[in-house]
Amino acid sequence: MNKRMIARTLGFILLAEAALLLLPVFTALYYQARFPSEDNVLFEYLATAGIAAAFGLILISVRPKDKTIYARDGFAIVSLGWIVMSLVGAIPFTITGEIPNYLDALFEIVSGFTTTGASILSTNGGGAPGDLSALSHASLLWRSFSHWLGGMGVLVFLMAVLPLAGGGGDIHLMRAESPGPDVGKLVPKSNQSARILYLIYTGLTLTEILLLYIGHHCGTDPNMDFFTSVCLSFGTAGTGGFATRVSGFADYSHYSQTVIAVFMMLFGINFSIYYLLLCKRFKDAFRDEELRIYLGVLGIAVALVTINTFKTAFTSFGDALHHAFFQVTSVITTTGFSTVDFNQWPNFSRVILFLLMFLGASAGSTGGGVKVVRCILMLKAAKVGARRLSHPRNVTSVTFNGKPVSRDTLNNTTTYFIVYSAIYVTSVILVALDPNLTSITSVVTGVAATLNNIGPALEELSPTANYGFLWPLSKIVFIFDMLLGRLEIFPLLFLVMPSAYKRHFRLHKPY
Amino acid sequence: MNKRMIARTLGFILLAEAALLLLPVFTALYYQARFPSEDNVLFEYLATAGIAAAFGLILISVRPKDKTIYARDGFAIVSLGWIVMSLVGAIPFTITGEIPNYLDALFEIVSGFTTTGASILSTNGGGAPGDLSALSHASLLWRSFSHWLGGMGVLVFLMAVLPLAGGGGDIHLMRAESPGPDVGKLVPKSNQSARILYLIYTGLTLTEILLLYIGHHCGTDPNMDFFTSVCLSFGTAGTGGFATRVSGFADYSHYSQTVIAVFMMLFGINFSIYYLLLCKRFKDAFRDEELRIYLGVLGIAVALVTINTFKTAFTSFGDALHHAFFQVTSVITTTGFSTVDFNQWPNFSRVILFLLMFLGASAGSTGGGVKVVRCILMLKAAKVGARRLSHPRNVTSVTFNGKPVSRDTLNNTTTYFIVYSAIYVTSVILVALDPNLTSITSVVTGVAATLNNIGPALEELSPTANYGFLWPLSKIVFIFDMLLGRLEIFPLLFLVMPSAYKRHFRLHKPY
Repeated sequence: MNKRMIARTLGFILLAEAALLLLPVFTALYYQARFPSEDNVLFEYLATAGIAAAFGLILISVRPKDKTIYARDGFAIVSLGWIVMSLVGAIPFTITGEIPNYLDALFEIVSGFTTTGASILSTNGGGAPGDLSALSHASLLWRSFSHWLGGMGVLVFLMAVLPLAGGGGDIHLMRAESPGPDVGKLVPKSNQSARILYLIYTGLTLTEILLLYIGHHCGTDPNMDFFTSVCLSFGTAGTGGFATRVSGFADYSHYSQTVIAVFMMLFGINFSIYYLLLCKRFKDAFRDEELRIYLGVLGIAVALVTINTFKTAFTSFGDALHHAFFQVTSVITTTGFSTVDFNQWPNFSRVILFLLMFLGASAGSTGGGVKVVRCILMLKAAKVGARRLSHPRNVTSVTFNGKPVSRDTLNNTTTYFIVYSAIYVTSVILVALDPNLTSITSVVTGVAATLNNIGPALEELSPTANYGFLWPLSKIVFIFDMLLGRLEIFPLLFLVMPSAYKRHFRLHKPY
Repeated sequence: MNKRMIARTLGFILLAEAALLLLPVFTALYYQARFPSEDNVLFEYLATAGIAAAFGLILISVRPKDKTIYARDGFAIVSLGWIVMSLVGAIPFTITGEIPNYLDALFEIVSGFTTTGASILSTNGGGAPGDLSALSHASLLWRSFSHWLGGMGVLVFLMAVLPLAGGGGDIHLMRAESPGPDVGKLVPKSNQSARILYLIYTGLTLTEILLLYIGHHCGTDPNMDFFTSVCLSFGTAGTGGFATRVSGFADYSHYSQTVIAVFMMLFGINFSIYYLLLCKRFKDAFRDEELRIYLGVLGIAVALVTINTFKTAFTSFGDALHHAFFQVTSVITTTGFSTVDFNQWPNFSRVILFLLMFLGASAGSTGGGVKVVRCILMLKAAKVGARRLSHPRNVTSVTFNGKPVSRDTLNNTTTYFIVYSAIYVTSVILVALDPNLTSITSVVTGVAATLNNIGPALEELSPTANYGFLWPLSKIVFIFDMLLGRLEIFPLLFLVMPSAYKRHFRLHKPY
């Protein structure tokens, strides 16, 4: 392991976080004159940025002898980076007194960075500490901004700005941080790929901010001011899900809700599709198997939920369709926004949403979950495997988008699926110990909602409730589940599997 | 496909069923003098046996040109055989008027043969049709006997009696009907293996009957008469789970409950272990990885549930341990007997039982579920796969009981796991449509309880409830889930996958 290179890269991550913390600092600066109660927040964010910068500077002073990054170094950097980033990012919430308990603050920021959107904040209003209404503008922005950063990845962001590792090692970082079974680099150079990804990401986010703000400006939605447009667009882009007001999304106009639903759908698409569109390779884009199945499943689910909720939960067909579209895109992309309390819907719709929690969005998008492409690959592999049972000499191989899928990718996919199931089961056992939860549905959907980076679950953890009442063990399990879900298990797993770092493996070449 | 050979073997299955139906016929003969209300049952069972025999004789008159059975013929025989057997086996329930609705009768007998033990019968008492109290002795015995037959398999039974297929084709039948990823033949000849299996099976069953009846005879359990001892031993041996009285198991003595719990545990062990013990190869037997993990999981689960239910559900530690042991063995072996309503237990215990529903017993036992060995193999494969991610040139292979596991077995195991998950999800969607079910937990545990051949689920389908109130679609889905679970998916899957029978595959040799 290249420990010096790991330390140095962690230093860059901290410096980047210090720089990014300037966004809430400026927000505090802007709002402290307008809201006297928020004048104590500026210093806290500045102090946190200072701490991050100081540690960052110390770490980047480490001079590595060798700049090569191997696959396992990439895993270590990504997992340690995300942990350090979260530990620092939680500080402001606690030192401002907005979330007095540091574990709660950590839960909140991990939920932010991992784009989960599960919150420990209550939504009673009144401005007591630990309630969403107590958060300053700076903290609301930092919370939503963490979604945006976590969505595309902090290391991918760093890579877009400066070359991190020599010898093509950047691909290991990108592979470890990006969702999906296989990283499709857009262009041969990782740095350039990262830059293109962030350009598309920023472009789409700005478009959403603009569309939301136009709605406000034209008077269709008085609640969607510029600040809210920015925060919610960050949350949509990262498929996060933090709300900025205690009433959730019910207060926004149908126009705003529809804009957000459409953008949730868009951010759940593999970003390489947008690159293909930019290159005017329309045919390749629309031929993509994952895109077709993602949109197909989304359409079918919207239709089923609409039919099921019309006349049971909604009196008008238009309302049923509107909320079905919003809720299905919200769950399939693992965003977790909610316009209504879907826990009140009929059982069939709730089961559909529960199952979509696991499916997740497309690989290479900002969404979480198992990912559509993994489900397709596994079903195809199973079909080939089943046929081989009765026809042992059959040598059909699995294809995706017309190309054969490598045995390595298939192995990784099934490995992922098995380890994912094992982590799911382990988490369910640990969370079931919580005396504050009395229903199995709460336990199994709570783990699903955190491990798949969705946010709200069902019953005791439904959109109208929060995660604050759980005991510390459950919060710690959920924190790990959120990180495991966002980093797709393996980087973190290697951190706790010492055998993966054994000396006798050191001579291997990078792959 | 060797259609003539398939027809002929189905004929033998029907003849066997006709012969086996003589057991309830004799029961009816014995009890009609003692219980005047049961005098109409004799003719109905005799008539059903006659129908089965007639169709059987017609089918065995088909003369096959070639007696070879290929893998796909084995799949077809097993799946069609189980369907035909169930269609005939359900007849007596309906024509005696005890279960007037034929779909309900079919559900009941499929639940019997597949050793599920889920019942559509209510347990109100009073003797109204459709209530457990309305069943004659003959029907109670036929229900429990179906567990015993289904546990080890009807084709394995036939094989023990007469050679079915030439050219070593019997192994395909055995493979298709026996649970587990790989069939370990005890001795080179399939027929002899089948005979040894049935001898061990019968021996264990007779021992249990004897132990239960001794308890009755010595006055420890007045409710455990000879008839009940036989019925419940059949249910234990097949890991089925049908009760014979409306009060369930609460009325039996601790002695009887303990005998049943111990035998449930024993019938969940791979029968080849007993063969090793008979051959005095004790070391090999106790070294078996699956046996150790099966007993280990069982022990840990009993300990956890005991600690969790002591002081919450039970005041005495002894009671907590007793019921924890009974309930854990009942669920892990997928028997489904219950001494108490575990739906009333604390959440942690319920979650443990819910997870054990999926694990299941050992391969080569009469228990259902995914099977311990499959879980071990998948976790081992995932460990190797995960290590390969960071050390691509690592060539460690998966071993089981010290021997390397073939790539085919691993492929079959992951294929099974994926198809199993897909069927689980599909069933959940279909059952969620049922307007009679209002809870997600009922839906997800109901599918788990039928697909894993357990029987009772949680909440609306808990041990104190039954499956009778569901709408027909749910009953049909559950019937298929029970069959898919018992036959481990693939035989039935090939029946509905026409591509598996394509002409251009015909030239393949048997494997």
